[in-house]
Amino acid sequence: MQASKPKELTNESLRGYYKEVRAYTEKLCEPLKIEDYIPQPIEDVSPPKWNIAHTTWFFEEMLLKKYVSNYQEFNPNYSFLFNSYYNTVGERTLRHKRGDLSRPTVKEVFEYRKYVDDKMLAFFDQDLQKDIRDLVILGLNHEQQHQELFLTDLKYTLSINPIFPVYKEDFALVEKINDAQEGFIEVEGGIKQIGFTGEGFHFDNELGRHKVYLKDFEISESLITNLDFIEFIEDGGYENHNLWHSEGWDWVNQNNINSPLYWHKKDGEWFNFTLSGLHKLNPSSPLCHISFYEASAFADWKGMRLPTEYEWETAADKFEWGLRWEWTSSDYAPYPNFKTADGAVGEYNGKFMVNQRVLRGASVATSPGHSRMTYRNFFHPHLRWQFTGLRLAK
Amino acid sequence: MQASKPKELTNESLRGYYKEVRAYTEKLCEPLKIEDYIPQPIEDVSPPKWNIAHTTWFFEEMLLKKYVSNYQEFNPNYSFLFNSYYNTVGERTLRHKRGDLSRPTVKEVFEYRKYVDDKMLAFFDQDLQKDIRDLVILGLNHEQQHQELFLTDLKYTLSINPIFPVYKEDFALVEKINDAQEGFIEVEGGIKQIGFTGEGFHFDNELGRHKVYLKDFEISESLITNLDFIEFIEDGGYENHNLWHSEGWDWVNQNNINSPLYWHKKDGEWFNFTLSGLHKLNPSSPLCHISFYEASAFADWKGMRLPTEYEWETAADKFEWGLRWEWTSSDYAPYPNFKTADGAVGEYNGKFMVNQRVLRGASVATSPGHSRMTYRNFFHPHLRWQFTGLRLAK
Amino acid sequence: MQASKPKELTNESLRGYYKEVRAYTEKLCEPLKIEDYIPQPIEDVSPPKWNIAHTTWFFEEMLLKKYVSNYQEFNPNYSFLFNSYYNTVGERTLRHKRGDLSRPTVKEVFEYRKYVDDKMLAFFDQDLQKDIRDLVILGLNHEQQHQELFLTDLKYTLSINPIFPVYKEDFALVEKINDAQEGFIEVEGGIKQIGFTGEGFHFDNELGRHKVYLKDFEISESLITNLDFIEFIEDGGYENHNLWHSEGWDWVNQNNINSPLYWHKKDGEWFNFTLSGLHKLNPSSPLCHISFYEASAFADWKGMRLPTEYEWETAADKFEWGLRWEWTSSDYAPYPNFKTADGAVGEYNGKFMVNQRVLRGASVATSPGHSRMTYRNFFHPHLRWQFTGLRLAK
Amino acid sequence: MQASKPKELTNESLRGYYKEVRAYTEKLCEPLKIEDYIPQPIEDVSPPKWNIAHTTWFFEEMLLKKYVSNYQEFNPNYSFLFNSYYNTVGERTLRHKRGDLSRPTVKEVFEYRKYVDDKMLAFFDQDLQKDIRDLVILGLNHEQQHQELFLTDLKYTLSINPIFPVYKEDFALVEKINDAQEGFIEVEGGIKQIGFTGEGFHFDNELGRHKVYLKDFEISESLITNLDFIEFIEDGGYENHNLWHSEGWDWVNQNNINSPLYWHKKDGEWFNFTLSGLHKLNPSSPLCHISFYEASAFADWKGMRLPTEYEWETAADKFEWGLRWEWTSSDYAPYPNFKTADGAVGEYNGKFMVNQRVLRGASVATSPGHSRMTYRNFFHPHLRWQFTGLRLAK
Repeated sequence: MQASKPKELTNESLRGYYKEVRAYTEKLCEPLKIEDYIPQPIEDVSPPKWNIAHTTWFFEEMLLKKYVSNYQEFNPNYSFLFNSYYNTVGERTLRHKRGDLSRPTVKEVFEYRKYVDDKMLAFFDQDLQKDIRDLVILGLNHEQQHQELFLTDLKYTLSINPIFPVYKEDFALVEKINDAQEGFIEVEGGIKQIGFTGEGFHFDNELGRHKVYLKDFEISESLITNLDFIEFIEDGGYENHNLWHSEGWDWVNQNNINSPLYWHKKDGEWFNFTLSGLHKLNPSSPLCHISFYEASAFADWKGMRLPTEYEWETAADKFEWGLRWEWTSSDYAPYPNFKTADGAVGEYNGKFMVNQRVLRGASVATSPGHSRMTYRNFFHPHLRWQFTGLRLAK
Repeated sequence: MQASKPKELTNESLRGYYKEVRAYTEKLCEPLKIEDYIPQPIEDVSPPKWNIAHTTWFFEEMLLKKYVSNYQEFNPNYSFLFNSYYNTVGERTLRHKRGDLSRPTVKEVFEYRKYVDDKMLAFFDQDLQKDIRDLVILGLNHEQQHQELFLTDLKYTLSINPIFPVYKEDFALVEKINDAQEGFIEVEGGIKQIGFTGEGFHFDNELGRHKVYLKDFEISESLITNLDFIEFIEDGGYENHNLWHSEGWDWVNQNNINSPLYWHKKDGEWFNFTLSGLHKLNPSSPLCHISFYEASAFADWKGMRLPTEYEWETAADKFEWGLRWEWTSSDYAPYPNFKTADGAVGEYNGKFMVNQRVLRGASVATSPGHSRMTYRNFFHPHLRWQFTGLRLAK
Repeated sequence: MQASKPKELTNESLRGYYKEVRAYTEKLCEPLKIEDYIPQPIEDVSPPKWNIAHTTWFFEEMLLKKYVSNYQEFNPNYSFLFNSYYNTVGERTLRHKRGDLSRPTVKEVFEYRKYVDDKMLAFFDQDLQKDIRDLVILGLNHEQQHQELFLTDLKYTLSINPIFPVYKEDFALVEKINDAQEGFIEVEGGIKQIGFTGEGFHFDNELGRHKVYLKDFEISESLITNLDFIEFIEDGGYENHNLWHSEGWDWVNQNNINSPLYWHKKDGEWFNFTLSGLHKLNPSSPLCHISFYEASAFADWKGMRLPTEYEWETAADKFEWGLRWEWTSSDYAPYPNFKTADGAVGEYNGKFMVNQRVLRGASVATSPGHSRMTYRNFFHPHLRWQFTGLRLAK
Repeated sequence: MQASKPKELTNESLRGYYKEVRAYTEKLCEPLKIEDYIPQPIEDVSPPKWNIAHTTWFFEEMLLKKYVSNYQEFNPNYSFLFNSYYNTVGERTLRHKRGDLSRPTVKEVFEYRKYVDDKMLAFFDQDLQKDIRDLVILGLNHEQQHQELFLTDLKYTLSINPIFPVYKEDFALVEKINDAQEGFIEVEGGIKQIGFTGEGFHFDNELGRHKVYLKDFEISESLITNLDFIEFIEDGGYENHNLWHSEGWDWVNQNNINSPLYWHKKDGEWFNFTLSGLHKLNPSSPLCHISFYEASAFADWKGMRLPTEYEWETAADKFEWGLRWEWTSSDYAPYPNFKTADGAVGEYNGKFMVNQRVLRGASVATSPGHSRMTYRNFFHPHLRWQFTGLRLAK
């Protein structure tokens, strides 16, 4: 999964890469009914139609409209209909209104994809400069991020339907099962190098490789399992305010939280909702769909703590990762020398650097080839709809 | 339009009536794309899929499940998925969550209609008692109400899409144009009889024919037009607190109201959104999509008032009506001797008799055959998405 | 209590009346600590400081500033600080912010009263025209309304303090106990005259005496008691949706309502909070502090209904009233020929005529001399902090 | 100001320290009217009455009730009335309801202080163990924190009163004016020691002295002034989304922010509200009452950034500080080896370590003797009612 793309993509290999990533999105769509493309039950969750149009919009807005002379827009309304948060680009649909739009139809959105793909593939016939090729690669990584969001958002939307619809009967995200190693890896402290280095793709928030000083620490080899968390529940973890941040305790009580998201107790037995329907909870699977507050409370209950993102990155070559986005104790903040890019692309990361927590690793829903040890994901501490889990440190 | 159904329907004529009403719903669906069946932008507006399933649910829940032995439900989940507000029947989907459900699919909902229709048509082969036949007729009138809601809800949903989608290019609700009669009808006061009398269908809220004493009054022959209301706007009607109820004034200011719903001013000219798209406003058409607050403020500005529902009913045989639901000054309250029916059907009307205003007449979106002079419609005073207008009294 | 003021007040008798009413306000203040003048726990409830300043403001704003040449305002800021809702007069403190103002101090507000009283008493030396004398009388009736609000608001504020402070140890609103007459008065129907007639003071909303037609009806001689309502509670009245308006049912569930306001159950026994502290509930006292929703649900549970305000007014000379503001089933609407007065005084009543219910009678907290059989009080249907009760009709 | 208390306090010196700190609170109260003790206009702001009772509660709850045998509570209700957020101690008044309580009176609260002071002074006659003496010192530092809150909260409450009341005519928080040094201090990077060391008082969140690695950096000698910020405003800083965090931009637009808190523009000139009333803004004073969002946007506009708390602590001995709480870019997080104390005292700091930003330094409102270079203050990023300012780094 961690295989990175060739360092220098030729136009030809870029074309192949483009086709591969774009095709993967469409493969994810195959099991959907047209109705599934529309609803947006909460603001965080975008409709599939919006996800697949917005990723296309990126290529039209950031590349074709800028670098292809006489480019004819597919539809001038799409520019604001499918903008996400780029103030620089102009007006846009309010985020929580994405599910209110029945038109354009799904068919039209696929025609839009086809139209933009044709233009992009023709675009690769030109002799593209490095900064343009880099922008294409950014667009493809952006699309991969939305592929994961496609699955996580869809899971949420199906989960709140009382009839628990199935995305795909035989759909199973491949879980690399830990070899039941419950040990801790000891890491010696000292000055460590943090941040991206090398030639492949990376986001701007990974840049600015820099030194940090770490104390000696230990980090667990494997992720916390469902069984571990059931023990926490049964020990009254959700009722003991001493384990929780003040805001976490409010969150628990205001939302009547008493289990991870998607867990259902029926006749004394735990089930969880998955993209292939409601199934008995597998106790040895890595815990999933928890908030930062729950991760912290669990760690506190264990008498341990969450790792910092620096500790995680320093030790990640020693443990198996990639199953869950792992909550760290680190605030999402710029690395030293972080520079915001000019224009709309500059809105990609920097402006979100407050009130969010860094997650490291990748999840079973992350697209192939879209993960690195220096990758920094981030969410607000109360959110649970991503495939989030935790690893302990001490 | 006011033609009432035959007083005593035979099983055979009931079957024909059933087929006719049910077919009309499906005719309304013809121009829709599947995507259009899903969104619910505000709580008041139900998705088309819900409207067409819920009307079917009525026949399954209130008739087939009760009176057909060994009746096999189409799908046991539909009982709560498509319940609207009948506490007696049991749990139901929260009203504002109807747009979050992509499944069952539209195709499945039409199969549900087909299944229930087949069972109902077979049901008519039996020798039905009067109370059962009456329940069928209630179900058909209920469906006609949802046919009007289908159009008004759909209009709202399309209207908030920035690309203003068209329901049907050549769709025009036939407007009976007033012959520019601006006169007032003088009605002599005295004791009047109010409420339904006769044999045809009626709702329980029209019953309890009773006497009221009315003073002499005058009521306008024709409805207020768009042009009349433009004068109100241009005279600063929306900025003059003296014209408004206190709650109306708050409503205006909190929602930045400065025109009827669906009006758009472009380059100094008024347009309005319709089911056939955005068109120039016709100044001589009856005003539409106003709240009770706007109706009252307009009347006050004219130095007149809204009629009471008693005045309206007393005079309605003297003027042409049926174009707009006409706001009256009357609170929606039970007539003397109003009795709530037993069971779920008893939840039809009585429990809404607080904080709502009576509207009389019918609108251009009302289904054929679904109007009477004694009909009592009702909405909260701030609502505008129905085809509402006004007539003055003094 | 129902004694009306002399029909034609001379300047001298007006002076006496003024002094009497103003003194009564100050008498109500005697038991207060300075701290009690400040808090406003909910928007409906005004701080005592505001109540006593606002009633003074009325005389300064509506009389002294208009009719006394060279009148020197006490403090120019008070004009907007103590305006309630008169848009005509200009800007004002937001209603829910009244409790945020520590200054002016209570001492300053009493100086303000003294200053305005001195000017008013001097004003009575002039030869006042009838419309000015009427305005003084309006101001005094306005002050009497705020005297009742003073008590009801203060009761609410003290009630939410966990230490249940006492306004006055020996304070007891005198309850005229019904002679346990549980009978019903039969009233013959026909055309009845409704509305104020005569010479004494009245509000504009009572005017426009007019005919209504009533059917024969029966109305109970006495008010519903606490014991009656305990039976309703014990019979599951708060859990039975069939008894409630749809909005009432929502109100019950969203606010976890399971008893009248100020009732507390301790060790299986009912207590209620009063202005003299927390006491055991007297079962034979008239029920108090209920919403319109509760009144309606109770009536429905009894198989009866609330009287209309017309029925109430027609029968009121046959029963003892004045203990509770009695919920009627009538919407608060203008009588025929209701005219809004010009200027700020015109904002007194008309603009509130939507979404409110008429209450008839008076309560034990109503000021002496401030009640009439034609008096129309009004509140929103969910409100309970006034001394509200109910009488049944059938 | 930075003078720390003697390392080892004897009982006698502790008694003197206790009397000094407690007296300072009462000195702050002198200019108040009784009315000023009550209002709580927003949840963040506590009424003065609450502040002075709560600090007393700390000594009664944490010391007298635990360590004085047969201690008689002053009033058993105060235990929950004046608890702030200590879940361990039990129930408490909801934080946003503190302003709704008129009783106990201010006089009673001062009697409570006197009662507890007497008991505490007697307590010092005993031979106290170190952990008890430390708890007393913690209580006094806690009281000093509430002394600053007393002033900042009061300032807010007076500021929203349209008549701008004055706390004290001649009240001026002494501003150490910078000598107009606009230079930057260069600091060489490397491994630095961070956190409290030594013997004096400190909070638990400063402990765990540890190493961090810092790059070379520069930090400004003086604080940003009002004039600097006026330039930002005049350059359109509040309208340029590129300068803001996404959440900051939402905050600006939802709250119509266009200047620091307490600034008022009259006839083109800036004034600001202070505890001695509304005065012309002094352009050379350090900027005050800004949010983290504003601090960040300003720094971005200057092409620089905020310092981290590590940079600040490393360089603080080279610049003059103590005028403003200075926003840093650091998330409020536990230092390595941070341990939560057992019991209620353990709720002091740790449970707030999410979604807050560290502020360093002290402000002109900080009590004498209550500041250190290792002190870590913290607030949510949108808050402005504290005396907050900023210093740049690059």
